[in-house]
Amino acid sequence: MQKETIFHQPYDQYAFAINDQTYCLRLRTKKGDCTEVILYYGDPFHFKESRWNIEEPIPMYKAFSTELFDFWEVSVIPPNKRMKYQFFIKNDHFSLFYGEAGFSDQFNEHDLSNSFTLPYLHKNELISPPNWVKKTVWYQIFPDRFASGNQLNNPTNTLAWGKSQPTYTSFYGGDIEGIIQKIDYLKDLGISGIYLTPIFEASSNHKYDTIDYFKIDPSFGDETTLKRLIQKCHDHNIRVILDAVFNHTSYSFPPFQDVLVNGKHSKYYHWFHFHPDELNNGDPSYETFSFVKEMPKLNTENKDVQHFLMEIGSYWIKEFNIDGWRLDVANEIDHYFWKLFHRKMKDIKPDIFIVGEIWHHAMPWLRGDEFDSVMNYPLLKSLLSYFSYETISTVQFKHSINEMISLYPIQVIKVLFNIIGTHDTPRILTQSNHQDKKVILLYVFLLTFFGTPCIYYGDEVGLTGGNDPECRNCMVWDSSDHNQLIYNSLKKLISLRGLYPVLENEGEFKWIDPIDEQSQTLIYERSSDEMSIFVFINPSYEKASVTLPIKMRNKRITNLWNHSQFAAESDSILIDIPPIDFFILKIESTDSLN
Amino acid sequence: MQKETIFHQPYDQYAFAINDQTYCLRLRTKKGDCTEVILYYGDPFHFKESRWNIEEPIPMYKAFSTELFDFWEVSVIPPNKRMKYQFFIKNDHFSLFYGEAGFSDQFNEHDLSNSFTLPYLHKNELISPPNWVKKTVWYQIFPDRFASGNQLNNPTNTLAWGKSQPTYTSFYGGDIEGIIQKIDYLKDLGISGIYLTPIFEASSNHKYDTIDYFKIDPSFGDETTLKRLIQKCHDHNIRVILDAVFNHTSYSFPPFQDVLVNGKHSKYYHWFHFHPDELNNGDPSYETFSFVKEMPKLNTENKDVQHFLMEIGSYWIKEFNIDGWRLDVANEIDHYFWKLFHRKMKDIKPDIFIVGEIWHHAMPWLRGDEFDSVMNYPLLKSLLSYFSYETISTVQFKHSINEMISLYPIQVIKVLFNIIGTHDTPRILTQSNHQDKKVILLYVFLLTFFGTPCIYYGDEVGLTGGNDPECRNCMVWDSSDHNQLIYNSLKKLISLRGLYPVLENEGEFKWIDPIDEQSQTLIYERSSDEMSIFVFINPSYEKASVTLPIKMRNKRITNLWNHSQFAAESDSILIDIPPIDFFILKIESTDSLN
Repeated sequence: MQKETIFHQPYDQYAFAINDQTYCLRLRTKKGDCTEVILYYGDPFHFKESRWNIEEPIPMYKAFSTELFDFWEVSVIPPNKRMKYQFFIKNDHFSLFYGEAGFSDQFNEHDLSNSFTLPYLHKNELISPPNWVKKTVWYQIFPDRFASGNQLNNPTNTLAWGKSQPTYTSFYGGDIEGIIQKIDYLKDLGISGIYLTPIFEASSNHKYDTIDYFKIDPSFGDETTLKRLIQKCHDHNIRVILDAVFNHTSYSFPPFQDVLVNGKHSKYYHWFHFHPDELNNGDPSYETFSFVKEMPKLNTENKDVQHFLMEIGSYWIKEFNIDGWRLDVANEIDHYFWKLFHRKMKDIKPDIFIVGEIWHHAMPWLRGDEFDSVMNYPLLKSLLSYFSYETISTVQFKHSINEMISLYPIQVIKVLFNIIGTHDTPRILTQSNHQDKKVILLYVFLLTFFGTPCIYYGDEVGLTGGNDPECRNCMVWDSSDHNQLIYNSLKKLISLRGLYPVLENEGEFKWIDPIDEQSQTLIYERSSDEMSIFVFINPSYEKASVTLPIKMRNKRITNLWNHSQFAAESDSILIDIPPIDFFILKIESTDSLN
Repeated sequence: MQKETIFHQPYDQYAFAINDQTYCLRLRTKKGDCTEVILYYGDPFHFKESRWNIEEPIPMYKAFSTELFDFWEVSVIPPNKRMKYQFFIKNDHFSLFYGEAGFSDQFNEHDLSNSFTLPYLHKNELISPPNWVKKTVWYQIFPDRFASGNQLNNPTNTLAWGKSQPTYTSFYGGDIEGIIQKIDYLKDLGISGIYLTPIFEASSNHKYDTIDYFKIDPSFGDETTLKRLIQKCHDHNIRVILDAVFNHTSYSFPPFQDVLVNGKHSKYYHWFHFHPDELNNGDPSYETFSFVKEMPKLNTENKDVQHFLMEIGSYWIKEFNIDGWRLDVANEIDHYFWKLFHRKMKDIKPDIFIVGEIWHHAMPWLRGDEFDSVMNYPLLKSLLSYFSYETISTVQFKHSINEMISLYPIQVIKVLFNIIGTHDTPRILTQSNHQDKKVILLYVFLLTFFGTPCIYYGDEVGLTGGNDPECRNCMVWDSSDHNQLIYNSLKKLISLRGLYPVLENEGEFKWIDPIDEQSQTLIYERSSDEMSIFVFINPSYEKASVTLPIKMRNKRITNLWNHSQFAAESDSILIDIPPIDFFILKIESTDSLN
């Protein structure tokens, strides 16, 4: 047994409360190195005759594996909301106890100092995203390019809708009125949440350079328009989240301009990160987003800035009843700020959703007191590598998904913002070398997996384009120009996800290895006590034939895509999946059927 | 190379800012498995021709090793307070890049997704304990047992001082006036900080069962007495910290009594964790400290409780100018509470010291926004195992110290509250089988190592006793009953620590392996640019002879204990250390001497 490969921490993704009674513990061991893990635990204060009086030890189970590691899990209810614990780890040759101070051959009931400690389960430390989020299918809208509902508010130099490739500076006149007019379209697709990129006054087309955080950009509409949008969305059970660009402002943001004029005498001087020596030499130097001088970085450690941004956060919730904030460049703002933000926003609206833009591993922001979720770029990378670029094998894809699951507590996994493209990436159909059937497979996975899927506007009808500015092209509204295959498949997938909650975040998730050794088919089961649904995805260019490793005789199989049913009459059946195709099969024991 | 043993996290003890410009990064590899580690890093936004324009890679150095691991460190100043990075890890046979997404053979300058990220260095995320703490030598006082200065305030049933073994319920009349009278004694010993166990009104002798948090216990004195104590301490450059017992109260705490009378109608009902079904059946059930019904646990998630406790925290700082809070049972109170506490207390007095009672690994409380320090019970365990119980070897001791260093950022290590006994452990002389020379060795280590040493009252004169109540015996004031060897050695050690800042937290710390293979002698160097001091500790019962692995010719050696000096006339010299003895030698190049 390789001690150096064994890992646990009594916090974060390795030990987290899943309700106000129960912890989920995870232990990492080297892949294949251990055969059994047993949890020894007890109340830290429960002694009898100076011996620690532990509870009945409970076995952990191997929950999932990555390329290098096995992850063991167990749920445990500590006797009095508190516990100390050690892991008893075995393989065929060896066994040892693992605790905070390392490894030992024996369990020492007189010395608790080698035990990990979970001191007390506090409700306010529970990671508890709003309940509605995990049932949501999102749709991301870049307002200038989605729909133009009001020609009167078009900016000057508005270009003809969809008649040109967008540049960094082009405007097409999309607006909030346009979105209102398309709610029925979104509802029909099955959308239950809209994420709007910034809508506050700004000079660019993307509006990530805010000038006035309390004002809707006039080219998008006004406060009344937004209220109507949100009302209509809520009437249709669609949530609306806005983009909070708090890391930086526009160069034209009045407080920034005030400093440019008044220098150190400006009351806003400390709102930014000016480099003092360089302020007054004609070319002021200051911290920015990236290296973009037009986007000066706000000093979120400054109390006035904190107050100002909290007011913004509160205002749009209180006055407009928005359902969440997407936080731009969230990782570059300090944790204290986000903790304050979390507390204030949740105080105003307890089920507000807070999702941060973080492209990398984000555990420190997801401890329950900052964000509920982050944009899941690592998942996007796995999906692209597997389905689109074809650079990783089925096994590697499974490992990468398991790796992602290992990063966060399960509550977080269930509300991750699962994008398959945003305004910052090439369009998914372009990424997939224009193979619409590949895109559909990608949606199959996304819509039958944990997390909350987000469709980038237009991807559902097959828009194409490379990186910004190409991926911010105008939505196509003429259905004869739509990719009907993508649209219809996606719509059906969203509908299935709604019909069968096991496919979203209510069901267990389990990879299935077919009996057939060489198979590259991706198979997994989503299940509850009531139901098992198997998803088969064949991303290869050849027909796949797979046999499930379960006894099929007397099982009734329903193809949820075409409603065909058949009953298996032998113990094993071969399932043929055409190239670049998929099956979603509900498999029931006929015993349980009438 | 064993990939599964390589570990890094871009936060906590593996990546922390050491000033507002610089990060310290740590990487863990399997012991002996890797020979070289190089940091590849750059600004996340710095691209040239779509290639990541990284900085000049910098080598990491092997900072220390534990039984199983090598720890590599490097200090790095990111170009614009932000960076992405990967580790290039080599051994004789193999090399690879390690980043957030795992391992790769090649450094891919087009894909940053495998890099770890430190998004932006915020000043408010710097771990910055008060500067004075790391220069402090603490003295812990259990007031009922230290000194009685005022007979008039003695509780009824006060026992004759030192004439009996204390029981759980005995009182001896020690008080604050007594402490005031002994400040000169403490000053003479070299103490620069006092930690008082609770002094607020309570019925027990230990007073961990508070009745009135705003009142000095009458048997200890009154508000005037405390003010005089603190004034006198401050006049002598001695800091004073008090014990905050916020996890639980006394059974007699009026709000608790109010609930016992008024049940759910009490406005204090939610101040505690009553089990609702059992409140009104004559034997109310509620959460407690441990299983002690006399100590009901406070509900620190309740806003009124938070407000009440913040008021207490503030009151004693504002009105009495105390220098810090020691937090009782700190791990069982929620993190939100402690973050609030940290912020409020530091707002009132920026250099207030906050030290939590946590017996286990405490990283989640030491991220800079809750505690400055914790009581270092893991160090105590190492010290006892090595010096007192003799159950671990010199190598094992070094590993355990290195293990401790690996747990926290270095700023935290330098202010850890290094106890060698408290009111909750047997006396150090008793632990050491009454061998005073062993106790002295233990103090030698404590006083020449990182952290802030804390002397438990009476240990300095050789008090003995097992666990509570024995270890809470009366201080002996008749110097003819003092262990002069311990007292004089400790006093001298404290004085040396004051004279030579390299011995405390200003100097580097480095283990020295003597050339002599079998040596069990503990040797380490504390050094700065100006000075090198070598500490030799021979805990064995036989004379040790060691040779330093440095060229000694033309070095002048000063024994700091007896001021003897000699110059080495050969390249290597043999240093003989008597059984259970030590040397503290300043070694200088004669070139640098006049």
